[in-house]
Amino acid sequence: MVVGELAYERDLIIIGGGPGGYNAAIRAAQLGQSVTLIEREELGGVCLNIGCIPTKVLTEGAEKLRSTRKAADFGIETNSIEFNLAKLQNYKLNTILQLREGVTALCKANKVELIKGSAFFLSEDRLGVESGDHYEVYRFKQAIIATGSSPKIPKGLKVDHVQIVDSWSITKLSAIPEKLFVLGSDYIALEMAMAFSVFGSAVTILLDGEDFPFDQSINMELMRLMKKNKIKIIKNVSISEAYVEQNTVSIYFGNEKMTGTHLFISLGHSPNIENLGIDRIGIKRTNRDFIEVNQQCRTSIPTIYAIGDVTEGPHLASKAIKQGKTAAEAIAGLSSEVDLRFLPIIAQTTPPIASVGLTEQEAIKHGYEVDIGQFPLSANGFAGLRGEKEGFIKVITDKKTSLFLGMHILGYGAIELITSGILSLEMAARDEDLLFPAYPHPSVNECIAEAFEAIKKQAIHIPPMMKREKSNV
Amino acid sequence: MVVGELAYERDLIIIGGGPGGYNAAIRAAQLGQSVTLIEREELGGVCLNIGCIPTKVLTEGAEKLRSTRKAADFGIETNSIEFNLAKLQNYKLNTILQLREGVTALCKANKVELIKGSAFFLSEDRLGVESGDHYEVYRFKQAIIATGSSPKIPKGLKVDHVQIVDSWSITKLSAIPEKLFVLGSDYIALEMAMAFSVFGSAVTILLDGEDFPFDQSINMELMRLMKKNKIKIIKNVSISEAYVEQNTVSIYFGNEKMTGTHLFISLGHSPNIENLGIDRIGIKRTNRDFIEVNQQCRTSIPTIYAIGDVTEGPHLASKAIKQGKTAAEAIAGLSSEVDLRFLPIIAQTTPPIASVGLTEQEAIKHGYEVDIGQFPLSANGFAGLRGEKEGFIKVITDKKTSLFLGMHILGYGAIELITSGILSLEMAARDEDLLFPAYPHPSVNECIAEAFEAIKKQAIHIPPMMKREKSNV
Repeated sequence: MVVGELAYERDLIIIGGGPGGYNAAIRAAQLGQSVTLIEREELGGVCLNIGCIPTKVLTEGAEKLRSTRKAADFGIETNSIEFNLAKLQNYKLNTILQLREGVTALCKANKVELIKGSAFFLSEDRLGVESGDHYEVYRFKQAIIATGSSPKIPKGLKVDHVQIVDSWSITKLSAIPEKLFVLGSDYIALEMAMAFSVFGSAVTILLDGEDFPFDQSINMELMRLMKKNKIKIIKNVSISEAYVEQNTVSIYFGNEKMTGTHLFISLGHSPNIENLGIDRIGIKRTNRDFIEVNQQCRTSIPTIYAIGDVTEGPHLASKAIKQGKTAAEAIAGLSSEVDLRFLPIIAQTTPPIASVGLTEQEAIKHGYEVDIGQFPLSANGFAGLRGEKEGFIKVITDKKTSLFLGMHILGYGAIELITSGILSLEMAARDEDLLFPAYPHPSVNECIAEAFEAIKKQAIHIPPMMKREKSNV
Repeated sequence: MVVGELAYERDLIIIGGGPGGYNAAIRAAQLGQSVTLIEREELGGVCLNIGCIPTKVLTEGAEKLRSTRKAADFGIETNSIEFNLAKLQNYKLNTILQLREGVTALCKANKVELIKGSAFFLSEDRLGVESGDHYEVYRFKQAIIATGSSPKIPKGLKVDHVQIVDSWSITKLSAIPEKLFVLGSDYIALEMAMAFSVFGSAVTILLDGEDFPFDQSINMELMRLMKKNKIKIIKNVSISEAYVEQNTVSIYFGNEKMTGTHLFISLGHSPNIENLGIDRIGIKRTNRDFIEVNQQCRTSIPTIYAIGDVTEGPHLASKAIKQGKTAAEAIAGLSSEVDLRFLPIIAQTTPPIASVGLTEQEAIKHGYEVDIGQFPLSANGFAGLRGEKEGFIKVITDKKTSLFLGMHILGYGAIELITSGILSLEMAARDEDLLFPAYPHPSVNECIAEAFEAIKKQAIHIPPMMKREKSNV
């Protein structure tokens, strides 16, 4: 730090232009703030450029391929169906470009000043920004840290981004892996395992633990679906070493050695805070080394906020977006707060998964005596008609109060339907609130009503004998 | 009526095995009633056999065809795409058969007695049932009328079910009409117009009035989409005559004559009550000639209930289902009631439509000073990524109280998303209830949040200049 250096004066500086950062920037601008957004790479951050959006182009491509293969049932006759990854990659790049241009235009329309560079704190009210051989100092009144995270790679493993890939480079493969190992159990691991399986890869999932991270009923059904789709699963894998030699990836764990063409490591993310200088200025960290924030996303330095993956909680853009808006509103003097209890978790798998609130196991751990209702899509007329009968909706209520505690969906429509669960949880719904309305017919939505009816053994489309059995499929 | 005739004794008799009737039968059985279900044709009624399900197989086929044609964008390469209606018809028959077997099995598992025949009231507690040359008399303690409705055909028009078809026979066409006229504006008219347009028919919609039956913003956008899809629209058509000659349908209205290959008449439905003997026993009718019922679906004769299309309200299976369950519960002594204020209306068009609560026009008519929020799917990242950017979500709130009044969606995901609207309306949500939660990312669900944000001109993905303009797209 140079004493007496020239510093540019700014009101609000946001470091990081991912979904958290740009949502915060625009919301702050809407509320009359003068906003500067600093991004060291591309606007839209990991999510738009190398994360959510690229992975979703792959899952959408897989979904379209799967659906096209099934279209013959509906009288749609195609001579041959080939999948061209290069073309999908091209579509991906165009999509990213378009979305990024959209975000840039939105920032400009909201008069958000955009600066390219790497920022780090010099003091509680000053930032240094490096960009190539440029270096500038900015003095700010308030700041938001939204620098995101990077893939966590265990010791002994080295990502070459060609055959050993992380969640950023998996979307850049130029050819379909012949034999793909997926190390991890999170939603990105699942999405990529299933997408590449549809594309034709022989996929083996190496679970870091015993199971997937969802409600036990979904985990069990996922295991069955994986087997059905010829995706192998090996549990409790801790890789000691993996290396590439002559186009072959050799993977060692315990006394075992396995070989394939590709290894995808999806073991979570670490917050990008190393070079931010936050320790120098005394911003407190949690014991897991994230930045500590309150309900308004304020750090231990009251003029500095932090949002998204640098804070505790799931590595999800939806969390970053909510926090970004909240921090901006707090800076503008509003009393907004973040509550992440009902943050949904989704996976664009085949079929998709969506989950919100407590799982059965969590509810029991929290001391609830639970009621469980579960309804299979195979018993829903519209799912049957569409030929998409896999999966179910499971709902959890408190036996004592009938308070709705959680919703867990595996099946087509899961993601769009989950907002019904989110809103109901937020509004402290009881079972009767979800039983009373009329649901559109025919639709998969009706499975929500029948899942709640199943609690009372009154689902119309489950025969009475089955109702006496344990409701867990 | 024969005096002293032998009558079989029954507890609860339900006349009509459509979705209303069979849902009522199963719910009543679940609650311990001994139930007899009389159906003159096939179990599942119009909905399953010739209505909702067959039309949805057609719309789903159209959707799959449309989607397959677009799949090339995602790297899915097909040599040629042909549509085989006969194969879809076959799929339809299998689907119907499977669903019907399911309903039959469910009724049997619930010990519902199934009788085939036409029933009519002999007195307040006796029914005659005719089946072929059999005739039996049943004495009942309670009864539910669930006889449904039939397509309304205006005078001067005669349906031949080959070239002039109604909502039942349109799904049985053996070849794709070359030039199809669709008379009507309801959701079935729209679904079939769009499906056959995708299949390759030249379609002209003959609106019976000025407009479609949705919120004005959706109606306007539908007009644009129809034009884009080369579907012609002629307003205020009242056909005086139509006849078939040498494979040509000639249609006369006013001084105009038009010719095509097919005419589909979709002008609503009339209740099936003519031969039921309800006037004989004094069951009251409404001034529009439906059976009058209270909130529990009870008619003017306290032991006789009526549900579905024989009662006032929209011609929708969702209504019949809700009423069926409620009538069964009322018969079992529960205090259940039906409230149809938040009955959703959906159309499986391309893209689909879903609507619940008040339209903007209705809200104004009800005396509300309204706030309107509208968000286009074209500004949603996930819709963009999927290449399904058409449509929007429109929400209506009361300016004074911020009470949520209605949600109207045109676009992919509409039907699954509408339950968020239904539940929020039922729970008397205010705008903040829908603004507070985190929405999954990336998903079309986010459009709900942005539509509510748009009310305050704070949608993140609408640039500020557009926000100052009228929000109606």
